[in-house]
Amino acid sequence: MGAKILVSVLLFSLLIFRSSGAPSKRIRVYRPCKRLVFYFHDILYDGTNSKNATAAIVGAPAWGNRIKLSGQNHFGNMVVFDDPITLDNNLHSTPVGRAQGFYFYDKKEIFTAWLGFSFVFNSSEHRGSINFVGNDPLMNKTRDVSVVGGTGDFFMTRGVATLMTDAFEGEVYFRLRVDVKLYECW
Amino acid sequence: MGAKILVSVLLFSLLIFRSSGAPSKRIRVYRPCKRLVFYFHDILYDGTNSKNATAAIVGAPAWGNRIKLSGQNHFGNMVVFDDPITLDNNLHSTPVGRAQGFYFYDKKEIFTAWLGFSFVFNSSEHRGSINFVGNDPLMNKTRDVSVVGGTGDFFMTRGVATLMTDAFEGEVYFRLRVDVKLYECW
Amino acid sequence: MGAKILVSVLLFSLLIFRSSGAPSKRIRVYRPCKRLVFYFHDILYDGTNSKNATAAIVGAPAWGNRIKLSGQNHFGNMVVFDDPITLDNNLHSTPVGRAQGFYFYDKKEIFTAWLGFSFVFNSSEHRGSINFVGNDPLMNKTRDVSVVGGTGDFFMTRGVATLMTDAFEGEVYFRLRVDVKLYECW
Repeated sequence: MGAKILVSVLLFSLLIFRSSGAPSKRIRVYRPCKRLVFYFHDILYDGTNSKNATAAIVGAPAWGNRIKLSGQNHFGNMVVFDDPITLDNNLHSTPVGRAQGFYFYDKKEIFTAWLGFSFVFNSSEHRGSINFVGNDPLMNKTRDVSVVGGTGDFFMTRGVATLMTDAFEGEVYFRLRVDVKLYECW
Repeated sequence: MGAKILVSVLLFSLLIFRSSGAPSKRIRVYRPCKRLVFYFHDILYDGTNSKNATAAIVGAPAWGNRIKLSGQNHFGNMVVFDDPITLDNNLHSTPVGRAQGFYFYDKKEIFTAWLGFSFVFNSSEHRGSINFVGNDPLMNKTRDVSVVGGTGDFFMTRGVATLMTDAFEGEVYFRLRVDVKLYECW
Repeated sequence: MGAKILVSVLLFSLLIFRSSGAPSKRIRVYRPCKRLVFYFHDILYDGTNSKNATAAIVGAPAWGNRIKLSGQNHFGNMVVFDDPITLDNNLHSTPVGRAQGFYFYDKKEIFTAWLGFSFVFNSSEHRGSINFVGNDPLMNKTRDVSVVGGTGDFFMTRGVATLMTDAFEGEVYFRLRVDVKLYECW
């Protein structure tokens, strides 16, 4: 009897079943153990903005260069970044951390990218890092990348982060909203 | 009594012990919760095949360039790719997804590489992504990389993927067989 | 009574609570299931040392090149490496494996880097690989990156690795001490 109650509680707290369109297929919805929303701001070096730039092209295919994103939907351009993280969508808000890593464009036909980066925190609020990898089909309204680990306050964490392009200006400024959902918390 | 049966079933389904050559050392063999086999096809841009190429050199050491893989076993060449994934080893089969990411050659003495990539699915069969990182000593018949996360149908998954070079033509076409073994399924 | 002792032992072995500055905040300390300490040795190609070099610049921002690390704290320089791993801090000790991967410098104001790499073992002691990703604020005495997976003897492992710059000579030789703490062992 006690075991049955335990199982029920576990099911209730860990997984909630909901029926999808196809009655035969069930989607399990898990509840995050921690959830954080941030914005980060990417200003790409374009040859004129060296003071404000937070990112730079460091690799390009044979037909490209490192000042301007190349043709073919920027296929092959690789960018290194150190972007401020803010709590709201204002570039000039006080940063609460840095998003540091790299991305590259990886499809000739449309814009898609692949990302490896860390959120690095060193404030009274958060100390430590969250590490992300995954593909970013950036023309989709939302897209998910994996949280593959963390350190400090985010020791050993895992999860999924949902990216959304919140704003962009030409090919120089991008603002991403990141909804970090952690499902393994230590 | 019931608990004992449960433990037995758990042991049977999760781990099978088998003795290795050295009797003192035991190798645990785990059974995947999901297993998938795919092929992906990498066609490297060589200056002449821009229409068919699915990959391009974007980084090179000082002694290299971005049209031709460099000497010293291509040490330092970095490649970005968007390769079709097929269910069989035929390049012209209908793709079921894309393998998107990067690899670089990382040893002067023999061919070895390091990979970071995603399998991206968006079909009736599979939706979501599987994220991989790891070293690829590509002269070995098989080699293992880590599955570090996933999204959608592969939410939060972890595992090991065994790569095998199924075919290659010169330095332009590579076909990899990937045996994805997932040991954490949500 | 027995249960109480068990709980005490569990608490003692798995987590030690210690009070931080703020009395309301508790830090849990976990004990690794496996712990390994290694050194690895990075000798960067500088145009003159092609025989000894274990690493090479393969990407650079527009203002840089691939022979010399660029200004602005090397921001944007990307390096591929195949470094010997030793058990002590002597470069000439017999390597027990190779550290293979890449790093890039990612901040204009101070030295920071981001790493993706594997420890690759193929000896009687260890077979398999450990995969790491994370940010490396290399001016800090110690810094943590994530162990995101492993293969072979390190099948499916996860953890945290603490990096320490053990020595360096100019911008060519770096020696890192790595304290690998694994918290998920299969």
